[in-house]
Amino acid sequence: MTLQIGVIGVGMIGQDHIRRLTTVLAGASVVAVSDVEATQAQEVAARIDAKTYLTGEEVISASDVEAVIVTSWGPTHARYVLAAIAAGKPVFCEKPLAETVEDCEAVLNAETKRGKRLVQLGFMRRFDAQYRAMKETILSGAIGAPLIFQSGHRNPSVPGYYTANNALTDTAVHDIDIARFLLDDEPIAISVMAPRKNSRGNGLADPLLTLIEMRAGALVAIETSVNIAYAYDIRGEVIGETGVVTLAERNDVVVKANGMFSGRVPADWRERFVDAFDAEFRAWIAAAKAGGAAGPSAWDGYVATITSGIGAKAIASGDRETITLRHRPPVYSAN
Amino acid sequence: MTLQIGVIGVGMIGQDHIRRLTTVLAGASVVAVSDVEATQAQEVAARIDAKTYLTGEEVISASDVEAVIVTSWGPTHARYVLAAIAAGKPVFCEKPLAETVEDCEAVLNAETKRGKRLVQLGFMRRFDAQYRAMKETILSGAIGAPLIFQSGHRNPSVPGYYTANNALTDTAVHDIDIARFLLDDEPIAISVMAPRKNSRGNGLADPLLTLIEMRAGALVAIETSVNIAYAYDIRGEVIGETGVVTLAERNDVVVKANGMFSGRVPADWRERFVDAFDAEFRAWIAAAKAGGAAGPSAWDGYVATITSGIGAKAIASGDRETITLRHRPPVYSAN
Amino acid sequence: MTLQIGVIGVGMIGQDHIRRLTTVLAGASVVAVSDVEATQAQEVAARIDAKTYLTGEEVISASDVEAVIVTSWGPTHARYVLAAIAAGKPVFCEKPLAETVEDCEAVLNAETKRGKRLVQLGFMRRFDAQYRAMKETILSGAIGAPLIFQSGHRNPSVPGYYTANNALTDTAVHDIDIARFLLDDEPIAISVMAPRKNSRGNGLADPLLTLIEMRAGALVAIETSVNIAYAYDIRGEVIGETGVVTLAERNDVVVKANGMFSGRVPADWRERFVDAFDAEFRAWIAAAKAGGAAGPSAWDGYVATITSGIGAKAIASGDRETITLRHRPPVYSAN
Amino acid sequence: MTLQIGVIGVGMIGQDHIRRLTTVLAGASVVAVSDVEATQAQEVAARIDAKTYLTGEEVISASDVEAVIVTSWGPTHARYVLAAIAAGKPVFCEKPLAETVEDCEAVLNAETKRGKRLVQLGFMRRFDAQYRAMKETILSGAIGAPLIFQSGHRNPSVPGYYTANNALTDTAVHDIDIARFLLDDEPIAISVMAPRKNSRGNGLADPLLTLIEMRAGALVAIETSVNIAYAYDIRGEVIGETGVVTLAERNDVVVKANGMFSGRVPADWRERFVDAFDAEFRAWIAAAKAGGAAGPSAWDGYVATITSGIGAKAIASGDRETITLRHRPPVYSAN
Repeated sequence: MTLQIGVIGVGMIGQDHIRRLTTVLAGASVVAVSDVEATQAQEVAARIDAKTYLTGEEVISASDVEAVIVTSWGPTHARYVLAAIAAGKPVFCEKPLAETVEDCEAVLNAETKRGKRLVQLGFMRRFDAQYRAMKETILSGAIGAPLIFQSGHRNPSVPGYYTANNALTDTAVHDIDIARFLLDDEPIAISVMAPRKNSRGNGLADPLLTLIEMRAGALVAIETSVNIAYAYDIRGEVIGETGVVTLAERNDVVVKANGMFSGRVPADWRERFVDAFDAEFRAWIAAAKAGGAAGPSAWDGYVATITSGIGAKAIASGDRETITLRHRPPVYSAN
Repeated sequence: MTLQIGVIGVGMIGQDHIRRLTTVLAGASVVAVSDVEATQAQEVAARIDAKTYLTGEEVISASDVEAVIVTSWGPTHARYVLAAIAAGKPVFCEKPLAETVEDCEAVLNAETKRGKRLVQLGFMRRFDAQYRAMKETILSGAIGAPLIFQSGHRNPSVPGYYTANNALTDTAVHDIDIARFLLDDEPIAISVMAPRKNSRGNGLADPLLTLIEMRAGALVAIETSVNIAYAYDIRGEVIGETGVVTLAERNDVVVKANGMFSGRVPADWRERFVDAFDAEFRAWIAAAKAGGAAGPSAWDGYVATITSGIGAKAIASGDRETITLRHRPPVYSAN
Repeated sequence: MTLQIGVIGVGMIGQDHIRRLTTVLAGASVVAVSDVEATQAQEVAARIDAKTYLTGEEVISASDVEAVIVTSWGPTHARYVLAAIAAGKPVFCEKPLAETVEDCEAVLNAETKRGKRLVQLGFMRRFDAQYRAMKETILSGAIGAPLIFQSGHRNPSVPGYYTANNALTDTAVHDIDIARFLLDDEPIAISVMAPRKNSRGNGLADPLLTLIEMRAGALVAIETSVNIAYAYDIRGEVIGETGVVTLAERNDVVVKANGMFSGRVPADWRERFVDAFDAEFRAWIAAAKAGGAAGPSAWDGYVATITSGIGAKAIASGDRETITLRHRPPVYSAN
Repeated sequence: MTLQIGVIGVGMIGQDHIRRLTTVLAGASVVAVSDVEATQAQEVAARIDAKTYLTGEEVISASDVEAVIVTSWGPTHARYVLAAIAAGKPVFCEKPLAETVEDCEAVLNAETKRGKRLVQLGFMRRFDAQYRAMKETILSGAIGAPLIFQSGHRNPSVPGYYTANNALTDTAVHDIDIARFLLDDEPIAISVMAPRKNSRGNGLADPLLTLIEMRAGALVAIETSVNIAYAYDIRGEVIGETGVVTLAERNDVVVKANGMFSGRVPADWRERFVDAFDAEFRAWIAAAKAGGAAGPSAWDGYVATITSGIGAKAIASGDRETITLRHRPPVYSAN
């Protein structure tokens, strides 16, 4: 009844997923881990009574590993995902699926060849109750056909190595994916506008306003503000033909004191999306037990990589850049 | 590492807890069940691969049962709780702890004799993030010393057997417990006011306004409206010397259409308190593994039973009735 | 076209009304003033080019005075109102109509004798857009028949002379009047509960919870907190058979900074009810030009005086006190 | 003490201003009117006891007219404003100041020659309490330096003659002006993006996303949705370096019924901006009595005309178009 999992890469995110799988959620156990830092792999494995392997490939091929989680360094994702597909084992992969479009396509081809989905991408927002309610509202027809989606993604601060390209590939990539989910559509062009830089960013082009045109004509406007200090704040509004739907402000209590009412805004992504991460893995555990995957697919990872990559190109050119996707394989037809 | 649990009583609530323990939360397994309806016990047991026993006492004494959940018919609670204490096994008991004050006192005495807490009462609101934030706000001093707590408890409807006394013993009992939690104080008197009856209630005295005086002087005003149709809505505000703290309205999205903005209110207690139930059992699993209990205690069950009982007396008399509690045993000193 | 007004009593409130009538609203001019402090009357008159009189009676009988505003010391209200009725001139009177029930009745009798309303009482909340929307909601049937009205009246602080009785006669009197307006009903009994005293109040019994039973069975619960520091905050909720209606929180902007969202709460009654005062006088100017009065009547002043008086008695007795009203004269039939 | 006003053009808006000046606000009277439809002028004049003139020029030169309101057909605005300046009379002009940049410049030159402001433009949003609070928040430093202003302007529907250019010149022109007010800055470039058309618009390019770059580097993103059915909804958020400030949702009451909470959104611009119109004219009456003008100036009218004109060009070209303003005359230095 318990899904036996191998985890490749036990850095901060890998460890957080292990914590979730072993102490929060029912139905899973972590039996194998690996990491480029062997010592770290051993420490983590010892805590949860798992076996350590020297390579991700060994984790994948371990006979007691039924499903694989890839939380290693980004450039290695594609390799492990392909190995898991080759082994016929369900695999959960954190974004990005791959850093190059070619590698993404290799995964699409491999999965297509097997004839079924094995890969689930870590776009946790698709499991967030608020975005789900937003999508249900759109599908209900309550606001008419969607025409514009405005998304706001605000971080208190980013590390020193963060560049404007990261605003696309690491940050807005989540907004891009959720826009596709909400609008059930694909991007065809992207442009990026850069206002005056936030003085807190050491020269970083921040904030950015990324504008994406979707195939059916809706417009996506993504504000990324990655050094805005005040909180981690995710905003979203879909403007339809006859109404709008907005992510509600959520907090626990309102305090009135000193002439003001006030309440908390989430401090970081963990606080904001804690329930979404739980739901994401609940769905994955159930799907992986059945030999498959749930929610965001390798196709979604492919579109994310190609779109954020062309977005980075648009930052450089200052122009509108078109996005051309390959044909969507039938295995991904049911989004 | 997994806590092996026996469940006594597998009606609606018992089954929901079993679902939670076996499919939602990590760290627990249900190995034994019993029910007055043996067939039902067998059906439930079969689904989760547990063993069926004819009596609760047998569940408690089963050698592989490390901890017990009592979700049987109210009048039987005390008996099973006492048996679990006698067996030295941690026990989670749904409200009420007991239907009579004498039985509650028997539990207090038994636990005191063992010198440590084994009992956790099912007052899940104490694990609700909103009430926890409310208590933290009070403790922070942000609103000054609390003077009034206004609590609103609204149900869409109640079953036909529900009486005005149930409004105290089944419904307001949660508000009474959370008032004690928030104010860190005990009740000394109670009176109940009954406005004109809701015509939807077939003669039921509904709504009620229950007024409780606390030892340190704060006043608790509890509105119970149990046939109010629109939703399951739990409201709360603490009025302090220099400010107030209010449970925030929480919902996923706001829709604007047809001249209005709108959003959902929870439909029932499951929707409203789903996270609190999860947190309650997470805390219990961890505490029971360590041989003890977390959160609400037998003392809280005792005060709830005595207070709601005297509240029922106040409904009958139309007067203010005083509440006298026995001395609080030291084992309950750390609330 | 311009209503020529005489103002009796030009203290803080009288001057504020004069400011409103001469610099804010169309259609009125102040032509006569009087005050027990003749010098103050002269200073105010000079600013607006009005004539000064030694007594309120002279203001009322001045030939160019078409309508009268009584903002003098409370105990003198009834005398001037009676004189205005005798002169057949419309009169706006700040609360209280009179300090004794007998004086209130004298006004009722005088107005009844004239066969039409001339008196408008200064219960400005009846002109507040939020309370009006609340009443419209009730009348629309959207929440079913009203069963409970909860009203919160919070002041930052009160002057040193303020007593617990003032909490009824000066503060809760507004909540009592608006409860009658919203429920379209009359009080039949009142009781007052006093929690532990706010330490900011120098021994004042504050806050208070005043409970009023209405003839048709609805219950009114009024919280008065007159030293609560944080702001001037007026709360209200009507609980009906199938829903509730609540005064919305209103503010101009929400700021997110330092991990919090926040906004202003009104600082005082002027800020909170500025638009209601304007609307109140707009209605009065129009009605007085037509020789009558609008909104709250002498009857409302009578019920306010009798109810708050018996409320003060209930504070002293600690008991439920019944309220018996005289028959309502037909001249007040259209509320 | 009363400002004697002549009104040129008594269509819907002219009549609404006359109503406001004669029945709502203190300190003004309308003594003269003219309209291209002489009969309509006579009817309106008869109601308020004013004199009718055949031409706007006659209204301006009438000896009892102290100040002028221009609410005639747009193309005639500049002519009357210039005549009023020539006569040395304060003039309130509804937008646009003029339809051509040349005419706007003629007004700037005329006013500069007189050495003082006589013209007030009808950008009522500058008197709206919410926008004022937003500006105060920015000036307070609470959100750091502003980097992006997002404005949403939603109309239920527009008349059949309305074109995409109108979305700039009639609708977004208000957002452009308030952006300049909030950011205290001038536009330097504009581009317009057009998503898929709202099917309710008979081929109208609607909604539009207009992007304006400001001199100091802030970015303004204006969403106009002019056939969105649900309500008249004005949204706004300023994103600063360390926080954000948002126009609050304002409504009177929240109703909970049928599983939902809900409240009203304004139905039209009259409801949304009624208080702003009152404040706008209160400021104008006071300023005109002193021989001048308050708030938005001819310079603001000039920038609005040039910016919305170039915006219309940007719709046609699909490109980013630059905006070059003439030097700002010193008479407009104090904004």
